[in-house]
Amino acid sequence: MDQTNFAAPEFPSTPFLCVDAEVMDRNLAAMAGRAAAAGLSLRPHAKTHKVPEIARRQLELGAVGLTVATLGEAEVFAAAGCTDLFLAYPLWVTPARAARIKSLAARAALRIGVDSVEAARELGQAVAGCGVQVVVEVDSGHHRSGCRPDDAGTVAQAALDHGLAVAGVFTFPGHGYGPGKRGPAAGQEAAALATAAASLVAAGIPAGTVSGGSTPTAADADAGVLTELRPGVYAFNDAQQVELGSCGWDDVALTAVATVVSSTGRSVILDAGSKVLGADQPAWATGGGRILGMPGARITALSEHHATVAIPDGVPMPRRGDILQAVPNHVCAAVNLADELVVVRDGAPAGTWAVAARGRNN
Amino acid sequence: MDQTNFAAPEFPSTPFLCVDAEVMDRNLAAMAGRAAAAGLSLRPHAKTHKVPEIARRQLELGAVGLTVATLGEAEVFAAAGCTDLFLAYPLWVTPARAARIKSLAARAALRIGVDSVEAARELGQAVAGCGVQVVVEVDSGHHRSGCRPDDAGTVAQAALDHGLAVAGVFTFPGHGYGPGKRGPAAGQEAAALATAAASLVAAGIPAGTVSGGSTPTAADADAGVLTELRPGVYAFNDAQQVELGSCGWDDVALTAVATVVSSTGRSVILDAGSKVLGADQPAWATGGGRILGMPGARITALSEHHATVAIPDGVPMPRRGDILQAVPNHVCAAVNLADELVVVRDGAPAGTWAVAARGRNN
Repeated sequence: MDQTNFAAPEFPSTPFLCVDAEVMDRNLAAMAGRAAAAGLSLRPHAKTHKVPEIARRQLELGAVGLTVATLGEAEVFAAAGCTDLFLAYPLWVTPARAARIKSLAARAALRIGVDSVEAARELGQAVAGCGVQVVVEVDSGHHRSGCRPDDAGTVAQAALDHGLAVAGVFTFPGHGYGPGKRGPAAGQEAAALATAAASLVAAGIPAGTVSGGSTPTAADADAGVLTELRPGVYAFNDAQQVELGSCGWDDVALTAVATVVSSTGRSVILDAGSKVLGADQPAWATGGGRILGMPGARITALSEHHATVAIPDGVPMPRRGDILQAVPNHVCAAVNLADELVVVRDGAPAGTWAVAARGRNN
Repeated sequence: MDQTNFAAPEFPSTPFLCVDAEVMDRNLAAMAGRAAAAGLSLRPHAKTHKVPEIARRQLELGAVGLTVATLGEAEVFAAAGCTDLFLAYPLWVTPARAARIKSLAARAALRIGVDSVEAARELGQAVAGCGVQVVVEVDSGHHRSGCRPDDAGTVAQAALDHGLAVAGVFTFPGHGYGPGKRGPAAGQEAAALATAAASLVAAGIPAGTVSGGSTPTAADADAGVLTELRPGVYAFNDAQQVELGSCGWDDVALTAVATVVSSTGRSVILDAGSKVLGADQPAWATGGGRILGMPGARITALSEHHATVAIPDGVPMPRRGDILQAVPNHVCAAVNLADELVVVRDGAPAGTWAVAARGRNN
């Protein structure tokens, strides 16, 4: 991508998000191959890209279906032809949502997460009979949503009692996002899922799908326990994944193409700020993002339309008008800010993809 | 707003952003009154709301024009009928941008920021003669863009030398965003602008507009130096402003309406995460946002679709299905994530406003 002339008139004015399609294709194929080699189903999380064209490519490469975070995302991907969707979220089912779930279930195999007896009962009362299947969410250490692993059987039984089929159990090992935490989190993921699956079996319910996986933990996923992986970020990767060691620089497929507009001392200001890159910055991150091809540079401050980039000693100072490629810390957040992604293939512009599920938060 | 029944079928499913129009109107009138009483022009920054309906109300209340951050925003507000725009950003002027600037300048009085001799020359070479005026940006301590205050006359002279009229000087006292920093930042703003204005006068150039102001520093703006204020956030306010003491809870006009979907111990999970609230969290903030009507609650973690809220002891635990109103840390970031804002007046739904300039980053 570094040979691309982003100042060419075929490109929009900066800042814009750009996907290197070759890198992305390689990322998609690598994860598909890894899952297949381990005997695991792959159900990529589409919240990362929100793009039907990319989802189709993931399905062509063997994904069993997609994971989504919201009903709105599910509707976009169902409309784009995806017929197997897992809404991995403990929805509160209002009458309006129940109608949307039934409509979706008429068009696609639909799984929905539940993490409590109450949630299972409410979902059953609202939509039993429409074909929706339940997947029980368990907490493997991230301490967000999810029931205790040994309560999974009780929650599954509540779903059955209220007319819902049970497809299995899942967890999100989000606590793997930290230096040195990927391996331990994958271990806790496997332990929690093993307990949850045993809890279902003890209740006389087949364990079915045992679903885990995030991009950082995917490489360490325990194929003796899991049957399914749900990574999302791997399609593009981002600065967090580079800094966590779960990908290399050559695996970064999405950047914010930005222009130097000002400079002072050893810092330059780019025209891509938090309204393009997102503001995610975990405590362990080295800054507000990274710069492709300039590994020593650091984004030391982000405001809405300014990124302050410290240029390392020994590197020639970029000049006003120079174009750099900033790597967002968290690509899911960056993509959700953009209405379209500019695609580059072989260094040349290759059209755009609409971020069709952008902003579909409800 | 707390009497509003957000579960009523007239409202969309949560999460969504909601504006209390009465609170917003009061905020708009208060800032307009404060500026008028101080003899200052008000040029609100429209990047906060991105909504033409709100911009029109600001202009009806006496604003001299709008401030914007990008050409795309300027185009949206020009199309909505605003005829006086200040693009407070050191643009890199490509041929494509030059054409857009000329088109805008034919429809509206247009001012553009420059912060170096090079930027002034380049802008003049690209668009001199179309009527654009330059405002010289100076650094008052935020250390982002902006030249040294005593270089302002040199930059202004470069603009004149390249065929551009000079409208004045401006600064953004962004270093006022911190506990105890509002007053000192306002003092530095006034000192920098006074130096910059004197630098123009020493070069034989009238100081013209002397523009400063942000929501935190507006109350302390020095009317003996400034002639113009450019606050943005004041229209809605947010958790940062509450925590900085620049507004009270009753001045918060925008919230993310969200449903409790899960709970554990003394925490609940809301269905509004960083894709609704934004991820801005300065080091001094007490969390990822606040909860309206529950000042002791803290958002202890944000992921894309989950906010973990610690409920204070003594407060009844919200239950699954309860609706809460989360106050974003940084309202500009939250609004930029939404395609529309739901409006409430007298506690009842009163339509929606399109976030017309959302995502117009270039």
